[in-house]
Amino acid sequence: MALIVQKYGGTSVGSPERIKNVARRVAAFHARGDQVVVVVSAMSGETNRLIALAKEIQPQPEPRELDVVISTGEQVTIGLLCMALAEIGVAAKSYTGGQTRILTDSAFGKARILDIEGDAIRRDLEAGKVVVVAGFQGVDSEGSITTLGRGGSDTTGVAIAAALKADECQIYTDVDGVYTTDPRLVPSARKLDAITFEEMLEMASLGSKVLQIRSVEFAGKYKVKLRVLSSFEEQGEGTLITVDTVEEKKRMEDPVISGIAYNRDEAKLTVLGAPDRPGIAYQILGPIADANIDVDMIIQNVGRDGATDFSFTVNRAEFEKARSVLESARAHIGAREIIGDTEVCKVSAVGVGMRSHPGVASQMFRVLAEEGINIQMISTSEIKISVVLDEKYLELAVRVLHRAFGLEKVSGAA
Amino acid sequence: MALIVQKYGGTSVGSPERIKNVARRVAAFHARGDQVVVVVSAMSGETNRLIALAKEIQPQPEPRELDVVISTGEQVTIGLLCMALAEIGVAAKSYTGGQTRILTDSAFGKARILDIEGDAIRRDLEAGKVVVVAGFQGVDSEGSITTLGRGGSDTTGVAIAAALKADECQIYTDVDGVYTTDPRLVPSARKLDAITFEEMLEMASLGSKVLQIRSVEFAGKYKVKLRVLSSFEEQGEGTLITVDTVEEKKRMEDPVISGIAYNRDEAKLTVLGAPDRPGIAYQILGPIADANIDVDMIIQNVGRDGATDFSFTVNRAEFEKARSVLESARAHIGAREIIGDTEVCKVSAVGVGMRSHPGVASQMFRVLAEEGINIQMISTSEIKISVVLDEKYLELAVRVLHRAFGLEKVSGAA
Repeated sequence: MALIVQKYGGTSVGSPERIKNVARRVAAFHARGDQVVVVVSAMSGETNRLIALAKEIQPQPEPRELDVVISTGEQVTIGLLCMALAEIGVAAKSYTGGQTRILTDSAFGKARILDIEGDAIRRDLEAGKVVVVAGFQGVDSEGSITTLGRGGSDTTGVAIAAALKADECQIYTDVDGVYTTDPRLVPSARKLDAITFEEMLEMASLGSKVLQIRSVEFAGKYKVKLRVLSSFEEQGEGTLITVDTVEEKKRMEDPVISGIAYNRDEAKLTVLGAPDRPGIAYQILGPIADANIDVDMIIQNVGRDGATDFSFTVNRAEFEKARSVLESARAHIGAREIIGDTEVCKVSAVGVGMRSHPGVASQMFRVLAEEGINIQMISTSEIKISVVLDEKYLELAVRVLHRAFGLEKVSGAA
Repeated sequence: MALIVQKYGGTSVGSPERIKNVARRVAAFHARGDQVVVVVSAMSGETNRLIALAKEIQPQPEPRELDVVISTGEQVTIGLLCMALAEIGVAAKSYTGGQTRILTDSAFGKARILDIEGDAIRRDLEAGKVVVVAGFQGVDSEGSITTLGRGGSDTTGVAIAAALKADECQIYTDVDGVYTTDPRLVPSARKLDAITFEEMLEMASLGSKVLQIRSVEFAGKYKVKLRVLSSFEEQGEGTLITVDTVEEKKRMEDPVISGIAYNRDEAKLTVLGAPDRPGIAYQILGPIADANIDVDMIIQNVGRDGATDFSFTVNRAEFEKARSVLESARAHIGAREIIGDTEVCKVSAVGVGMRSHPGVASQMFRVLAEEGINIQMISTSEIKISVVLDEKYLELAVRVLHRAFGLEKVSGAA
């Protein structure tokens, strides 16, 4: 018997039939004696429908009132799921974010959870009920409804698991776990049984978008055992995301690299011949930040002849904006030229194992060189090596690295 | 400057465009210095959509969870109306039934209001804001969401007006007031400037369904000045519904009859030759009540030769059910025969004036006789005379009574 928090996303509760499926899964855990708290999102499409309705009334909707409107999406789902549970004989009780008092700050649309009052939930669980909580929403100290922003239901799940000291927080999604790389790109990609929070953060931010990053940070901070599973498959243990040192030690025997992530939406900008003086990075990136453009990789090489070349990558959709910002600032910076390239991609090898295994980077560069793939930029962290490549090499690079680091499915294994 | 509660029904807020219209009307009151609290229903069709969704999950939805689901309808409207007000420069704040703490009992789906906490609303009004409250919903003492049942938004409006001691509660609907009879039937029907609560109750229960009966009772009990207006017309004072004795005195000069109501959905059942003994009414109507059939008019004539004929009317849709209940009970009752007629209707003259004007009933019967209309049943109360007629005479009877009691539009008047 365990206390389990399960989170189901919009696709998993996207129709009455799917809600009934979720109810059957929850009932199975309940039947084996587990205490189950279920966190649900709005039915898929519902949040977008409500936002569109609001924008018909007010192009820039009042943030407080927009949260009043869109929080109804999850409220509908919690009621429906409780009905589906009751219909198969499982007593269940629903809670909105306000009712279970998920206290947040007042940043409407992107609120952060401050505290969760779990007493009522605990009483219901003790009484043998399944508790169903609306994800993505809370209340501020004045009682106004808030929402946590897109994907916030994952965060609700983890926060409730932390508040209740749950044994596990299970995130049900439309994939059956975290893979060594994108299975659509590399059919031999293997599902990982376990991954560390740090690796997960690197994987998530690099495009393997299984979990919302904030929920992973939250789980790491509060040491919540997090598991990603498929809501469409009956079997399977999914992927465990953990900070457990025992888990990490066990993994010492595993391959040094856990996965190959990639991001196709990259664009590269280079400032050529900038004066090599203190503050130059700020002079270049300051205007970019002022224009609200997110910067990903940043590379500055040692200068030569008092000048330096400074490169960074941005989301491809923001390339033109970033380029014109730089052009406007070029004279002030004192740079010779601004060049850019939108046909680039980023490929990364991620793994905590590289901490104890030197030589991973050189192995990666050798593999790419053997295929004739030119590396345009390199950036490394403790558990990740990223390279920027010509976009046309993306699939090839991911495949050869996946094979080189021994990530392929063992023949015969799942 | 006045404190006004305005209630807008589902049709009045049925689209983004209509919500914007409501905002403009509210803004006009706000601009002239009134403090305005707006109570809104769900957008038309929304509640039915949510109920259908719930029934797909559970044919007999859990009452508590059904209220969680359907209460989202009004929640969406309050948010949207606040946005519409903000868009035209009027500061507004929304409240769900839980947020303004409309405390009800726990009778989910048909809860009754126990108390309203109006302090937060008062503060917002003092600060110059328009307050928008979700109709039809509240919370019980445990914090569970409740709904007041269909039409409950009217009751919310009146209850808030009572709690805030508002100067007037305006119910905006798709008609511009209460008429002397159905204008579709009698084009010369006249809008009443005022009507008493008692008359309104008789009119409403007889088919002039402008206001929910419970809200009228509530307004009478708490002496809330209630006014029915059209949400689609800019001008017009609507109809004032009042208990004010001054109003009633003034009305002494008015015609004795305020309106002619009718109901087409009637069916008549008669138990012939039942023994004329104590308890016979219970023996006949007991099984009908047990079968959950609502009975309207009940007539028992004096007996002859130890036997009596007992008649009553039911909703036409329940005629067959009622008839078979009576047939099963006939032998036990000791009656000779059960007969019935589905082609009947009820026509009523309503007016507090008849208290002080004897002879209204005989005038009514004379008018009908002059047209050769046979009266099948008669029932009277202090302020109402109802007759059951062959359905084919309905339009004729309403028209001649409307004319006979001087209810027609004065030529040239609105």
